[in-house]
Amino acid sequence: MTVADITPAAASLGNELHDFVSELYPICRSITGNGVRETLRRIGERIPLEVHEVPTGTQVFDWTIPPEWNIRDAYVADAHGNRVVDFRACNLHVVSYSTPVKKKMSLAELKEHLSTIPERPEWIPYRTSYYRRYWGFCLSHSALLGLEDGEYEVCIDSTLEDGHLTYGECFLPGERDEEVLISTHVCHPSLANDNLSGVAVATFLAQALAASRRRLSYRFVFAPGTIGAITWLSENRDGVSRIKHGLVLTGVGDAGIPTYKRSRRGNATIDRAVVHVLGRSGGDYEVLNFSPYGYDERQYCSPGFDLPVGCFMRTPWGRYPEYHTSADNLDFVHAEALADSLQKVRAALSVVENDVSYVNLNPHCEPQLARRGLYRAAGGLKDESVDELGLLWVLNLSDSRHSLLDVAERSGLAFENVTAAATALVEAGLLEEAAG
Amino acid sequence: MTVADITPAAASLGNELHDFVSELYPICRSITGNGVRETLRRIGERIPLEVHEVPTGTQVFDWTIPPEWNIRDAYVADAHGNRVVDFRACNLHVVSYSTPVKKKMSLAELKEHLSTIPERPEWIPYRTSYYRRYWGFCLSHSALLGLEDGEYEVCIDSTLEDGHLTYGECFLPGERDEEVLISTHVCHPSLANDNLSGVAVATFLAQALAASRRRLSYRFVFAPGTIGAITWLSENRDGVSRIKHGLVLTGVGDAGIPTYKRSRRGNATIDRAVVHVLGRSGGDYEVLNFSPYGYDERQYCSPGFDLPVGCFMRTPWGRYPEYHTSADNLDFVHAEALADSLQKVRAALSVVENDVSYVNLNPHCEPQLARRGLYRAAGGLKDESVDELGLLWVLNLSDSRHSLLDVAERSGLAFENVTAAATALVEAGLLEEAAG
Amino acid sequence: MTVADITPAAASLGNELHDFVSELYPICRSITGNGVRETLRRIGERIPLEVHEVPTGTQVFDWTIPPEWNIRDAYVADAHGNRVVDFRACNLHVVSYSTPVKKKMSLAELKEHLSTIPERPEWIPYRTSYYRRYWGFCLSHSALLGLEDGEYEVCIDSTLEDGHLTYGECFLPGERDEEVLISTHVCHPSLANDNLSGVAVATFLAQALAASRRRLSYRFVFAPGTIGAITWLSENRDGVSRIKHGLVLTGVGDAGIPTYKRSRRGNATIDRAVVHVLGRSGGDYEVLNFSPYGYDERQYCSPGFDLPVGCFMRTPWGRYPEYHTSADNLDFVHAEALADSLQKVRAALSVVENDVSYVNLNPHCEPQLARRGLYRAAGGLKDESVDELGLLWVLNLSDSRHSLLDVAERSGLAFENVTAAATALVEAGLLEEAAG
Repeated sequence: MTVADITPAAASLGNELHDFVSELYPICRSITGNGVRETLRRIGERIPLEVHEVPTGTQVFDWTIPPEWNIRDAYVADAHGNRVVDFRACNLHVVSYSTPVKKKMSLAELKEHLSTIPERPEWIPYRTSYYRRYWGFCLSHSALLGLEDGEYEVCIDSTLEDGHLTYGECFLPGERDEEVLISTHVCHPSLANDNLSGVAVATFLAQALAASRRRLSYRFVFAPGTIGAITWLSENRDGVSRIKHGLVLTGVGDAGIPTYKRSRRGNATIDRAVVHVLGRSGGDYEVLNFSPYGYDERQYCSPGFDLPVGCFMRTPWGRYPEYHTSADNLDFVHAEALADSLQKVRAALSVVENDVSYVNLNPHCEPQLARRGLYRAAGGLKDESVDELGLLWVLNLSDSRHSLLDVAERSGLAFENVTAAATALVEAGLLEEAAG
Repeated sequence: MTVADITPAAASLGNELHDFVSELYPICRSITGNGVRETLRRIGERIPLEVHEVPTGTQVFDWTIPPEWNIRDAYVADAHGNRVVDFRACNLHVVSYSTPVKKKMSLAELKEHLSTIPERPEWIPYRTSYYRRYWGFCLSHSALLGLEDGEYEVCIDSTLEDGHLTYGECFLPGERDEEVLISTHVCHPSLANDNLSGVAVATFLAQALAASRRRLSYRFVFAPGTIGAITWLSENRDGVSRIKHGLVLTGVGDAGIPTYKRSRRGNATIDRAVVHVLGRSGGDYEVLNFSPYGYDERQYCSPGFDLPVGCFMRTPWGRYPEYHTSADNLDFVHAEALADSLQKVRAALSVVENDVSYVNLNPHCEPQLARRGLYRAAGGLKDESVDELGLLWVLNLSDSRHSLLDVAERSGLAFENVTAAATALVEAGLLEEAAG
Repeated sequence: MTVADITPAAASLGNELHDFVSELYPICRSITGNGVRETLRRIGERIPLEVHEVPTGTQVFDWTIPPEWNIRDAYVADAHGNRVVDFRACNLHVVSYSTPVKKKMSLAELKEHLSTIPERPEWIPYRTSYYRRYWGFCLSHSALLGLEDGEYEVCIDSTLEDGHLTYGECFLPGERDEEVLISTHVCHPSLANDNLSGVAVATFLAQALAASRRRLSYRFVFAPGTIGAITWLSENRDGVSRIKHGLVLTGVGDAGIPTYKRSRRGNATIDRAVVHVLGRSGGDYEVLNFSPYGYDERQYCSPGFDLPVGCFMRTPWGRYPEYHTSADNLDFVHAEALADSLQKVRAALSVVENDVSYVNLNPHCEPQLARRGLYRAAGGLKDESVDELGLLWVLNLSDSRHSLLDVAERSGLAFENVTAAATALVEAGLLEEAAG
């Protein structure tokens, strides 16, 4: 499915996804604090979510959980008391993790604490200062140019105190212990594509999977970027070996084509599954090789873990100017793109879920398919269909060394065709799942 | 050699091949019965052929040998007693394996038993009904349109009784037990390309090999398609492990370019040998990957056997409209194409036959070739020839891990050059065959 | 660096290289004799060189050291006593290894001992007759056409007597026993590109390495082509296993693009190192697969040794008409090309020298680089630099299975960037060299 030819059902799904993005948009999130808690509470209204609180000062591998940051208000007011920069209007106005401040200063002094984007004069940048004590404001460049000389009152009513880092986890047990990890970051304030799009798609995906039969188990992690993923890995280091497939979801709502960044392993089942789905979608897409720069796949793919976790996105973060600015707003994210991302990720997980190896129980020569009603009864009297080809390919490659994804890749058939053929052959007693 | 620049010797060979196709053309063959017996008798006049008869009802893997089918006459006669469809004019008129019938019926009733090809109104289709009891006639669509309303007499004077499936085998022992399998189907009635061309080329190939020194042993199987190959595999399952290389020959007489379909293994020696020969032929050709749809390579490459058997043909069956129609006649098959196919298959088998690994007995630095008369005596006074390069390549790669085909592929030299170099080096005492 | 944008330092280096080529140019070298000795003496003025003398008759693998050849004078004089061909004017006039001769003969008889290049009428060819007793002269075709009928006096004042084959070796020990072999042939008379360019670049390379810290040991072999390399291998067969990387240097001074011929192994570290350097140079270059035809890599890559030795050159020998003629003179060799060759070989050896595997000591998630001053302190406040990417790539792939060249190849970063990142990480205590 491409964004262009969206179905009514997908359109409706897209609108629901966009509504959820809109619901979460106003909340001021950071890597710790009440914004994350409120976000997780809203997610928890839709899927079973366990919320974890990890205290400030906890060592997580090479890192330490920082003080918890919360903010009530912030502004810059001119000599007349007019708020010329106002946190209440847009939470991007405050550099995230700004230390509290309340004082008066000249414009020259103030300017050392102001960030803008001169080449995009109407946009407000998004800035953070997690690990360096600092305070600052972000504003549009045109607003900066409008500031007149004089004394300004600066107020950031924030706290940086011992508290917790908060993350949420949704576990959906399946028939097997092997797990699929879906991870998405929840630390950005009013930015829609990065990463409320990822939060919404992950939530809806969990909702859908919760209602499905599951061979594999699924674990969804909603955590602040970097420090959150590191914390989760630190708290779960023993269970990590159960993760057999994984995806980081991020930036899945813009109008760009789907993009997949491979895991460090490069050709893991998840990599092949996503590439298979994108390749058969009929639309444009891009596949990137792994690099250690990007989102939380950096942590999952660090050499001590080397998990088979790729990253599904649309336009990669470095390639759109709206990235990390106020222009990454609710208009930048499209219902169709959200629905398309969700459907493609579901299709890829369906491949992973059904990627079983079989053994042909009648491996010497072809079995007589006609006798079993699986095949044209009279040679040449009917045209061959794709399904016959699927039956023959599955029979031919089911020697316990080829999985159904191998069959799909080698035959050029769609994975669903191959799965349907395998199901029919199992029912006919010609195939059984390979041991192990 | 390409069809375009045929030599007189090849032209003469092509005519002999075409004559043999013409000799076999009138016989009405099916998967059992006297047509196959008569065909094998003619083949046996040219090469030593052992004929095997396997009784009806014999279990061959998942299949059962069907009743033997024979036919003496068949027709549809109009109210005046004129044969409007006549088996004596063309044996394609009867659906193969038609049950006996003799009755009168209306045109409407008759039409349910008639097959035509509306888009090719002058051609008669070829139809079979091996595993579903049925009777029917095939005719040209224009003949169908000419049938007037009225009563018709329908007669198929056939028998479907306990009997045998018949196949022929020609074994040519070589110095070694390792075998090359050449398999071709013999079950089609008056169709020239599919597969009398294969029968003729296989017969002439056996004749030529019978008169040659053979390092390897050769086994030719002339059997009905599908059920015949399955029967042969079932009867020979213990000996199958001796088959190290194999080819199915089919559709080798049409005017199209040579086409090779790889074995399931994809890069077996036979695959590389045929591709090497085609690649150096100077003419166009096509190489297809294995698929489980096609001719009897389906059975040889089923996962329980996985034999290194590819399929040599010209235009693949699905790509010419004459396929399985009366237009696959003696005009559709060309002497030049038959001769070219035979020569290319011989060349590929010659590669397989001579694909030996050697050990360089003087592996430290180059040996002094000049001293042995193998090389230019005076540096620079003569131009280097391809043969010198052949000598150097064979010496360089003869470490027992590279066969002569490896040398040919890596060097880009023709296999015959490489073989000639190896022979000269063996004679000079610089090379010996690798153990094992 | 390309020849086009040469730096002043490189230009100066190029001139020094060209001066050394000019110094060696007049000497009459052959595979044995005083010309080689004098050449090695000049090299020994610049680098520590051990000269080896191997007696005539010594068996070296399949070969025997031939008699030593020396020449004092040679000419063809016309009836008036005028030297129409004069060794003193150009040492190419005498076929190398010509037996002594002094007699008178007709032009017709003389012509059987004359070689020219008709299609290049002003050039004198270079000819040898090492292993067939013969005498002859080489001259320009226009000179040949100018010879009038009459009697000529022919004189070659040469000796072919028991003596020695001479080669030179420069060994630069490093911290480790593993050796890099640099080999170049020294047997050609007044030919500048083939191979005084190689002799000059190898000498300057040894000079530079002698003054550097060396992890690996380096062994330079200056030996006559073919028989010299074979002799060296024969005399050093026990030490050969210490050679882990090697290059033959030849024809490195012409105006063509750099060309690298891979070792027999095809993807040895030296192959990858040279290809990496050429690929990042910004200039054109060519990479050839190994073939057993060429220079002394033939011997080093013979199957009994199979050393990882490639060949660095500019235009390959078969592709320029000046090859083995008097047109391969001092004008044919360019200072810029010599300097560029030296720098590219140095860069490739620097890759080999520094191609170490490391272990990330903090392999679970990324370490906090900011805390260690290795990284932007405030997320998003600074742009990412290539160096950060280098740090992340080295950390990500340092699992002891990837060397720095692996990191460079996979990341697409320059090897120097990767090395710099590794050094910084070792200093920060985040990385250590892998064992073994």
